[in-house]
Amino acid sequence: MSLTPPPGPPPAPTPARTPVPGPVRLGERAQVALRPAGSARVTGGFWYERRRVNAEVSIPQGPALLDSVGNLHNLRLAAGTATGEYRGELPFLDTDVTKWLEAASWQLAETDRKEEFAQAEDMDRMIRLLAEAQQDDGYLQSYYQVVKPGLRFVELRWGHELYCAGHLIQAAVAHHRATGREDLLTVARRCADHIDDTFGPGKPVDGIPGHPEIETALVELYRETGERRYLDLAGYFVDRRGHGLLSDGRPMLGDAHAVPPGPAYCQDHVPVREAETVTGHVVRQLYLLAGVADVAAETGDPQLRTAMERLWEAMTTTKTHLTGGLGAHHESEDFGDPYELPNERAYCETCAAVASIQWNWRMALLTGETRYSDLIERTLFNGFLSGVSLDGLRWLYVNPLQVRDGYEYRGGDIGSRRTPWFTCACCPPNVMRMLASLPHYLASTDTDGLQLHQYATGSYSGLTGGGLVAVRVDTDYPWQGRIAVTVEEAGPGEWTLSMRVPQWCEQYTLVIGGTPAQQEQEQEQQQEQAPEDGWLRIRRTWQPGDTVVLNLGMEPRLTEADPRVDAVRGCVAVERGPLVHCLEQVDQPGAPGLDDIVLDPTAGLTVRHRPDLLGGVTTVIGTGRLRARPAGQGWWPYRVARATGDAAQARDGVNTSTEAPMNTPTDAPLELTAIPYYAWANREDGSMRVWLPTS
Amino acid sequence: MSLTPPPGPPPAPTPARTPVPGPVRLGERAQVALRPAGSARVTGGFWYERRRVNAEVSIPQGPALLDSVGNLHNLRLAAGTATGEYRGELPFLDTDVTKWLEAASWQLAETDRKEEFAQAEDMDRMIRLLAEAQQDDGYLQSYYQVVKPGLRFVELRWGHELYCAGHLIQAAVAHHRATGREDLLTVARRCADHIDDTFGPGKPVDGIPGHPEIETALVELYRETGERRYLDLAGYFVDRRGHGLLSDGRPMLGDAHAVPPGPAYCQDHVPVREAETVTGHVVRQLYLLAGVADVAAETGDPQLRTAMERLWEAMTTTKTHLTGGLGAHHESEDFGDPYELPNERAYCETCAAVASIQWNWRMALLTGETRYSDLIERTLFNGFLSGVSLDGLRWLYVNPLQVRDGYEYRGGDIGSRRTPWFTCACCPPNVMRMLASLPHYLASTDTDGLQLHQYATGSYSGLTGGGLVAVRVDTDYPWQGRIAVTVEEAGPGEWTLSMRVPQWCEQYTLVIGGTPAQQEQEQEQQQEQAPEDGWLRIRRTWQPGDTVVLNLGMEPRLTEADPRVDAVRGCVAVERGPLVHCLEQVDQPGAPGLDDIVLDPTAGLTVRHRPDLLGGVTTVIGTGRLRARPAGQGWWPYRVARATGDAAQARDGVNTSTEAPMNTPTDAPLELTAIPYYAWANREDGSMRVWLPTS
Repeated sequence: MSLTPPPGPPPAPTPARTPVPGPVRLGERAQVALRPAGSARVTGGFWYERRRVNAEVSIPQGPALLDSVGNLHNLRLAAGTATGEYRGELPFLDTDVTKWLEAASWQLAETDRKEEFAQAEDMDRMIRLLAEAQQDDGYLQSYYQVVKPGLRFVELRWGHELYCAGHLIQAAVAHHRATGREDLLTVARRCADHIDDTFGPGKPVDGIPGHPEIETALVELYRETGERRYLDLAGYFVDRRGHGLLSDGRPMLGDAHAVPPGPAYCQDHVPVREAETVTGHVVRQLYLLAGVADVAAETGDPQLRTAMERLWEAMTTTKTHLTGGLGAHHESEDFGDPYELPNERAYCETCAAVASIQWNWRMALLTGETRYSDLIERTLFNGFLSGVSLDGLRWLYVNPLQVRDGYEYRGGDIGSRRTPWFTCACCPPNVMRMLASLPHYLASTDTDGLQLHQYATGSYSGLTGGGLVAVRVDTDYPWQGRIAVTVEEAGPGEWTLSMRVPQWCEQYTLVIGGTPAQQEQEQEQQQEQAPEDGWLRIRRTWQPGDTVVLNLGMEPRLTEADPRVDAVRGCVAVERGPLVHCLEQVDQPGAPGLDDIVLDPTAGLTVRHRPDLLGGVTTVIGTGRLRARPAGQGWWPYRVARATGDAAQARDGVNTSTEAPMNTPTDAPLELTAIPYYAWANREDGSMRVWLPTS
Repeated sequence: MSLTPPPGPPPAPTPARTPVPGPVRLGERAQVALRPAGSARVTGGFWYERRRVNAEVSIPQGPALLDSVGNLHNLRLAAGTATGEYRGELPFLDTDVTKWLEAASWQLAETDRKEEFAQAEDMDRMIRLLAEAQQDDGYLQSYYQVVKPGLRFVELRWGHELYCAGHLIQAAVAHHRATGREDLLTVARRCADHIDDTFGPGKPVDGIPGHPEIETALVELYRETGERRYLDLAGYFVDRRGHGLLSDGRPMLGDAHAVPPGPAYCQDHVPVREAETVTGHVVRQLYLLAGVADVAAETGDPQLRTAMERLWEAMTTTKTHLTGGLGAHHESEDFGDPYELPNERAYCETCAAVASIQWNWRMALLTGETRYSDLIERTLFNGFLSGVSLDGLRWLYVNPLQVRDGYEYRGGDIGSRRTPWFTCACCPPNVMRMLASLPHYLASTDTDGLQLHQYATGSYSGLTGGGLVAVRVDTDYPWQGRIAVTVEEAGPGEWTLSMRVPQWCEQYTLVIGGTPAQQEQEQEQQQEQAPEDGWLRIRRTWQPGDTVVLNLGMEPRLTEADPRVDAVRGCVAVERGPLVHCLEQVDQPGAPGLDDIVLDPTAGLTVRHRPDLLGGVTTVIGTGRLRARPAGQGWWPYRVARATGDAAQARDGVNTSTEAPMNTPTDAPLELTAIPYYAWANREDGSMRVWLPTS
């Protein structure tokens, strides 16, 4: 592979280094191993371009969409400034507004000339609207205010009232950090105070919400305001779960089959401290765990940490798709059983990827262990990023690992085709806020030094024991494995630069100091095995301009699954670096579809960078063939298995099938082009496969 | 294999031959190839025992359950003879009553001393209640009468009003045929007349119901009464579909994602005549097709027949599980894409099996082709019969092909554990009415002779061109392949006895005439290949006492699937005769679970009849081993595929997993005992597999 950088977007000018504390700004006494970098800026490369589209296309779309779909109208109804019907039948439509506000706030926070921020007026308009809609006692949720005014905090399983409050708080925290302004924060605090007055032992409601989110939000509000009671309330919501508060045995949502959705759907099946595995509705489970991690970080509760480690291992070893995607069932949007990881029916909700990244970052900070950032990387580059189209305008709610040749698209939110918006539009603004806050998931510091968790061209700084340190990263990752780090602020004395060697990486080279040219020459002697705990630690007294070049081996590879993953028996997946690849039908002109394709695992893989394709991607080329379809199968697709592999039929019946005629396989090798999974579904509709049969 | 019959229930005394016309009693001018046998009695053997449990345990449970669950209470509310809340939130609860009445009627029909029938009083009580609940204009559905009186025939997608009417009519037809009484038939006719007054071009509602059922019921009512307008109304409902009448774009059932359930769910996506494949809600699709077949049978419409043949081929070649089960998605209970046939998430609703049998029997009569009865046999013995426990008291709504070692049971209707009743209790009374009417799906006649479609000990008679003919069948099918037919009424002149050679059967022997002892001796010379069209035709002038012995080869076999069925790649299933087998954990004492078991396909299969087990079953014994789990896998269940099959890991991370310790596989062969699939889930809870990996 050439080390020449492929053509890409022109590097952006390095902006002034403005500290933008990220989604997790820990409390003063937080008991964690690491703290987020005080400043992180992405200034070029892969994520720069994805974030540029987010900032210039996706986020700017928000206000008009929220107007046309009805979210703002509903808030106006609550404010008494509009008349008409409540639009939509879902109780959580306010969160589309607050999640968009959070996204816009993170974007605003890193804008140098804030007064010129294009969405500033829309933001202010929405903040005023939220303030107007809020009731005198602090309650704020348009659905119950307008549609069910008598049922406030009664329908806790499906009401989403605290979920809406949580996203309001998160938006307010982001807005406050970005602007220092108090207006939205005041709305959020009034709402939180009302909840604190309402919920708890001896208070009007001793209960929990069916959909977690308030927990992590309250801890963030505690961090922002210093008010301990918000943290205590979060702790209450965490520990009150699992005692059957939500289990009235009645169906939710008119479901014909009563259970599920049941206690696990609402995360009320077992106390968090006793849980043995992740289960139920995936996003609810993971938002809850992000809140649990926040509580554990601020309180140092060792039992919560142990429980989370147990749940994390159960999740990753048995319930995680190759893409980092989570969720095996369409029905109830929930986790499946261990090793139940279907391809075409993988749910892998985009919001679940966001939630997983949020939880894992908190675990990374809490423990200092690389495995959490390993999973973040895999999720970011695959199961998360697939949720938004390359042009930033179309979305996937579910992120399947397979679309069949005969796929029947039925419309709606959860089909395997991108759509401009959803009836239940939780995912698009979730992607927006994750991309807008992405820099804060990349680096951390501790008293000993600075840690790079993810690799994106940019600058990263923070306080170590000795003072401020700063580095610049230049890389074409994930297209190339070369990551060059230059020290910009050396600080006094020794400190450790830690770089994560990704879990997928088998070999790397490392050159410290010297010029880049010298480094390249020295590489051959320095092939190294990955360190046991994933951290490459370089400790020394640094000088400004010192360089470290880490070169991760980027050979494409074929991946197989634990044999208990029945769905992919006899299959391999193509991966390169952190990227899972897939076949899309449009790239295989030699095959009429994908369902008869077989990959030859012995034929090797080659790499071809395609600056023209999908915004510039490195493709992996394999060799396969078209499988012969069984002859004389008739109307029954099952037959006696012969030792010879040769099929005989008891009786075929008269096959007058209208199916497409048999393909005409040959032994001619077929070139197979695998694109990165995140880029699928950006061209014409067609079939797609991540896992490829080898026979 | 020994030909000695295994111990079984004592043969029942042969009852007097009373004609009991079955669910499909064709009209005088029906344009079909075959007609149902005029009389069919099952008097011993496998189905005799299943039907005995149905008659003595399942059906007698009905009245108390319908009382305690609230179905009868709801009808009393509609009748004004009770007060209180409507019980349950579903609009189709009346059908549990009418389907039970239909089941009881079919049972009553074959009871010789009708005055002693144990359920007679309960039946009369329910019939009176239905009459009392019926409104003056003929409308009858308790849900809309009590809960939504202003919305009659408005919520057509989910209202189930015509579905309820359909089951009322079917119950009335069965009751009329069983007793000759007019009381329930009068209720049904008033209801049908009201629908005929309401629905149609130029009438108050030009529309269709979201859930088909009325179509086949109206044709049955036409057959019972001779009133052509019922047939015309059925034809209207068939042809009015697919024009978007139900597509108002709003979500049903509070579903958060709007579509599905959409037009396909309600079978309103395409006109029946133009449909290319089966899709949408499985039971709705198949009930509709049963109605289409009824209309086609009575009208001779060739376009409808062509459409159904096209749909049948699409369904069987690409969307049918090995068990005959139908339905790949839990969500929306619908068909999947072609070859999307999951195991643990197979839906295979018990009602879908009932509906498939009903449609296929109509197709068998319409066309005279054996393939429809082939599918009936497979469904009856597997995906249908698994729906009820051996003791007749517990039910499965879904019939999966796999339950994992770590299966998490969450209660409710659609778990993989049997329950005594369901919130949505459509399946249990459907099983009851199918078993009660089973004899009518077994044999047919035409002018040329008598056809045996299924093999059950009993007597079968009907009119051929020459007059009445009758045969007796004696068999231990499906445990043994020997089917002995004795002519009881020979009729005048020549006629043809046709016997279906099942599609799974590769070789058989046939001996005509002579004594059974002679026949056994002659077998060796007469191994034969199955006839091309599946019918073994024996034409001659018969004498009473003439015998035919068909001996179907019953060697156990391993079955593989079309390679496009991704879910079972690298797997085989064990079958014997018409029975699909499965492993249940309880039968494999040498293995800690099923997920690590591998079957050796070269080691051969043996057969062991176990009179002690599960009411007496023939088991198939295979040889397998415990698969070694990948070493050092850490927290990530995917790894680089090595050509050697040997695994290396980039980095395992620190695996402190709380998972069960690695198993300790050896090369020691493991005896694997496969029981018939229909008998699964009748002992302790545990894992189950139909498809077994071979490596």
